[in-house]
Amino acid sequence: MTETTRPDPGDPEGAIAAAAKRCSNWGRWGADDVLGTLNFLDEAKRRAGAACVRRGVSFSLAQTFDANGPQKGWRRRTNPVHTMLDTGADAERGTQGFPHGLGGADDVVFMPLQASTQWDGLGHIFDHGAAWNGRRAGDVVTSEGDRVTGIETAAAHITGRGVLLDVGRAIGDGGELPDGYAITTADLEATIAAQGSPVGRGDLLCVRTGRLARARREGWGDYAGGDSPGLSFTTADWLHGTEIAGIATDTWGFEVRPNEFDVAFQPLHQVCIPHIGLFIGEMWDFDALAADCAADGVWEFFLSAAPLPVTGAVGAPVNPLAVK
Amino acid sequence: MTETTRPDPGDPEGAIAAAAKRCSNWGRWGADDVLGTLNFLDEAKRRAGAACVRRGVSFSLAQTFDANGPQKGWRRRTNPVHTMLDTGADAERGTQGFPHGLGGADDVVFMPLQASTQWDGLGHIFDHGAAWNGRRAGDVVTSEGDRVTGIETAAAHITGRGVLLDVGRAIGDGGELPDGYAITTADLEATIAAQGSPVGRGDLLCVRTGRLARARREGWGDYAGGDSPGLSFTTADWLHGTEIAGIATDTWGFEVRPNEFDVAFQPLHQVCIPHIGLFIGEMWDFDALAADCAADGVWEFFLSAAPLPVTGAVGAPVNPLAVK
Amino acid sequence: MTETTRPDPGDPEGAIAAAAKRCSNWGRWGADDVLGTLNFLDEAKRRAGAACVRRGVSFSLAQTFDANGPQKGWRRRTNPVHTMLDTGADAERGTQGFPHGLGGADDVVFMPLQASTQWDGLGHIFDHGAAWNGRRAGDVVTSEGDRVTGIETAAAHITGRGVLLDVGRAIGDGGELPDGYAITTADLEATIAAQGSPVGRGDLLCVRTGRLARARREGWGDYAGGDSPGLSFTTADWLHGTEIAGIATDTWGFEVRPNEFDVAFQPLHQVCIPHIGLFIGEMWDFDALAADCAADGVWEFFLSAAPLPVTGAVGAPVNPLAVK
Amino acid sequence: MTETTRPDPGDPEGAIAAAAKRCSNWGRWGADDVLGTLNFLDEAKRRAGAACVRRGVSFSLAQTFDANGPQKGWRRRTNPVHTMLDTGADAERGTQGFPHGLGGADDVVFMPLQASTQWDGLGHIFDHGAAWNGRRAGDVVTSEGDRVTGIETAAAHITGRGVLLDVGRAIGDGGELPDGYAITTADLEATIAAQGSPVGRGDLLCVRTGRLARARREGWGDYAGGDSPGLSFTTADWLHGTEIAGIATDTWGFEVRPNEFDVAFQPLHQVCIPHIGLFIGEMWDFDALAADCAADGVWEFFLSAAPLPVTGAVGAPVNPLAVK
Repeated sequence: MTETTRPDPGDPEGAIAAAAKRCSNWGRWGADDVLGTLNFLDEAKRRAGAACVRRGVSFSLAQTFDANGPQKGWRRRTNPVHTMLDTGADAERGTQGFPHGLGGADDVVFMPLQASTQWDGLGHIFDHGAAWNGRRAGDVVTSEGDRVTGIETAAAHITGRGVLLDVGRAIGDGGELPDGYAITTADLEATIAAQGSPVGRGDLLCVRTGRLARARREGWGDYAGGDSPGLSFTTADWLHGTEIAGIATDTWGFEVRPNEFDVAFQPLHQVCIPHIGLFIGEMWDFDALAADCAADGVWEFFLSAAPLPVTGAVGAPVNPLAVK
Repeated sequence: MTETTRPDPGDPEGAIAAAAKRCSNWGRWGADDVLGTLNFLDEAKRRAGAACVRRGVSFSLAQTFDANGPQKGWRRRTNPVHTMLDTGADAERGTQGFPHGLGGADDVVFMPLQASTQWDGLGHIFDHGAAWNGRRAGDVVTSEGDRVTGIETAAAHITGRGVLLDVGRAIGDGGELPDGYAITTADLEATIAAQGSPVGRGDLLCVRTGRLARARREGWGDYAGGDSPGLSFTTADWLHGTEIAGIATDTWGFEVRPNEFDVAFQPLHQVCIPHIGLFIGEMWDFDALAADCAADGVWEFFLSAAPLPVTGAVGAPVNPLAVK
Repeated sequence: MTETTRPDPGDPEGAIAAAAKRCSNWGRWGADDVLGTLNFLDEAKRRAGAACVRRGVSFSLAQTFDANGPQKGWRRRTNPVHTMLDTGADAERGTQGFPHGLGGADDVVFMPLQASTQWDGLGHIFDHGAAWNGRRAGDVVTSEGDRVTGIETAAAHITGRGVLLDVGRAIGDGGELPDGYAITTADLEATIAAQGSPVGRGDLLCVRTGRLARARREGWGDYAGGDSPGLSFTTADWLHGTEIAGIATDTWGFEVRPNEFDVAFQPLHQVCIPHIGLFIGEMWDFDALAADCAADGVWEFFLSAAPLPVTGAVGAPVNPLAVK
Repeated sequence: MTETTRPDPGDPEGAIAAAAKRCSNWGRWGADDVLGTLNFLDEAKRRAGAACVRRGVSFSLAQTFDANGPQKGWRRRTNPVHTMLDTGADAERGTQGFPHGLGGADDVVFMPLQASTQWDGLGHIFDHGAAWNGRRAGDVVTSEGDRVTGIETAAAHITGRGVLLDVGRAIGDGGELPDGYAITTADLEATIAAQGSPVGRGDLLCVRTGRLARARREGWGDYAGGDSPGLSFTTADWLHGTEIAGIATDTWGFEVRPNEFDVAFQPLHQVCIPHIGLFIGEMWDFDALAADCAADGVWEFFLSAAPLPVTGAVGAPVNPLAVK
């Protein structure tokens, strides 16, 4: 697999069109397909994933979901607001009206589906009005939600062999890549080589940049939407060619920010989601898992990362569990 | 393990107090414990769970999360409301303002945390103002949420060996128990014996009554809050004695409705959550899994059921994955 | 003003097109107009309204906004869900962390903007893809909201002379019209004549059918969306010709249900909002005001009914105040 | 009426207790009272208000309600999030499923009730666990809302004579008071004298500081919760003695920030709401009205400011209309 040549920074539209053409999976799994790269994740891969459970230790790869998150309201993305319908204070005070000493607490949440740890669905991004598999965007996602590739269609599938690529540790300074660092295919392959766990068809990749560790230490700042390390646009062919089932990062936006064109917004998304049909996870927390992997030298695990099946969602929160 | 004698239907308060005393786990894992019966789910059990992955087939045990659910607004529990922040229709029409042909869809949800498939947290139910481990309810759950046993404390733990007890199939008529049927300890043990998979310390039990299958066929009706089959109050000692890590049902409320006392509301919850520290799942969907288990005769699986870690939540949605 | 002939029940599309042509106000106030019939409500009319304040008694014409409302989730319209961010129970218990004995309560609401008493905005209804004043619907209302005629554009305008037409009392049995009763132009004029208060240019009309009184007595039932008395499709020309500024009813949907065509959904809306530019209020509560008007024989009042200026809203809640 | 002596900055608790004792209205309108100072607003005052309508011009005193507001998430107060249930883009595209060319748009909002222009209800603030009229805070406001003095109890009352006190213009530099400026009784009386409109029993006071004008010019910054001009703690006796029905400002928090004690949080609220029973409005927009009043020299008007009657709310949004 060769690295894509770095494209003309003044021509994002041309570069995107060329990459889309090279990497397109349209029609690969039939006209009705709603799974995209999850088609690569088969039963054998799940057995391989389960075989990675050697010690029985589990890690949640989710950030918390609360009002103290990184969102600042861009395009109405607030942090989750969690409120109580009933509380222990009321229960203890005896104002709830239940019999025989029963008391209860109950709650509700309002949250953008991509406010915290999440999977992008295949209806999240379009290229010139085209959605995954060549459908028209307006036929797929209306104000009623994604009527074709809603995240619920992926609900049962996302469990298999996970591999952590700790690029921050392998290449970065103090375990962290700086903002604006574009992770190249060479970086990914160097990390794989250094860690010793192969990556291939149907795997779920977890790419740690260290960006979250820095936000945790220094405060959110512009974690949500600002500068960040991330995947280079030039990795599109590698992401397509490896036939991975999905990929997640510890950053807000998966790809490097600022983007690598003069005027651009998330160009790698524009290739990966509508053309490759790739499942992309964002805002995952790999830090505890990474420490464990560095300690025992084992970078693979069983990953269960089923998104909350909100019907018609174009992205969904998830609490991914890695078991080693 | 002996079955609890059916108590005096006129004295729920006495029966609850007696069962609470017999089954209390207060202090068992120290004064600071926030995990309750999840303490039973250890690394060996996770290895045993992973060993259940023989074919690599996965099942989501979640109902969908949408406006067509069973909630009717009782105590402000509505169905989830999912709305779009951006749509494909707008993207295709070109009104979004992104460069180089990029279009996007994004969304938001408002939902009671127990509107659909969920885990009850340990802060969900109190007994006479006491929460799990003997804490005062008002110290634990305020209008800021559960400050001690919020569901995020369980986030990394709930993955291990799952066992489906299809009581509906073993005992019911046409695979379904009727409303008001109280599942007894004898029923549970008969189902275990019939299926051949032992149940023990640290397991995650999935009890299928068939109630959801009926709702799916006949319409929701009073699925959320009305009459239902479910666990008998008399199973409290068995639930305590087996040292299971958690238990989930395909019903709204886990225990039989109407409750088995003249005037009562969820008395088994009042023993299980604050006194046993038991994790209870509700509104799970076992039907596809059950069909598969009946077909291959294997009722155990690797279960990953990590709740969405909404900070301070007293219950949380989950998309449980069973892998066989 | 003549009554429109009752149209062919098998041809709603033809009837709507004909009425739209007869009643169109497109271009009447220029190409940039966002106010529609509010243009009729001028300063003289506000002075006339203020002159109606004779006793100084005020009435709220709003229903309450809470979980006990009539909504059943049709097209995701739930009842308002009001939750607390801080409570008095917590304040009294001293867990809030404020200094010198201060305690506070705070709250949040999630609600469809047309869940209870509201004004329809001019972006609420379209005819064959056309919005008020001939704009294209997709240029006006995207997933970002109504970018042209958002309800905030009407915020300062809706105060003037109100007139209650108690058609339920004038024509109905026991003060209430039955479901399916189509209020005709003749009914409106008979009520005006019986009450003795003229109706004209710039007035805000309040049409009481008695439907809410029945719901209050018998339970909501299908108040929201079901059968109801309401304006006949044939009143379109009268609504246009009187040059009223707005009209509100005590029903969910303003016009009679079932609609007067074989297959139809709110055909009068389709004429009134995009073509006449008429402001329509729904789910108002006229009962206390009506009793007062019947008692003193005065049916006019100063009405202040400014919608909550949610930016870009296509409808908005309002607490209308009538002062006599 | 004499100005309160500036209290010891090191003793907020003592100062609050003393002011509360001097200004208490507990029991003044009976044990069951829920209206507080709205009792001062009688029918004669409403007639006097209506008599202020001389030209028929109306002003909305509301800020907009949208995602671009000043809230930053403090205590979970976000800006309003408005989303669409149906859009014009979908209507124009023909995907909605309505008959005969009908299209519709519909929407929903999630918002803290005090996110923008609002009235504080009498259940908003407590003093050492006591609510208005001496009730226990936990008896009044539970997680179900304010069960006694919910804002709906005020719904029909808040309309009468309004007077704008443009303290920013009368005393400030360029029409604006600086942050931290504590408006004294002398300042209020000087403004009244300069403007020439008397203030008395039952009036609704609108105090303009110019803080909003500065935020509009410079950006929100810390408008919500940060430093601000506002009423001095020492005005408590004046607010009590004038027997006004309510008072609103163009600031987030009504009183001066930083507060005038070494360690304090909103001490004037702690006197005004639970002890005086005073209705306080915040985040109102007086700028257009103030310009008009300065131009014609008339500072009084008819004010209709009925809060949205969200059942049990401790504060509520409002679109106040001033008609001159």
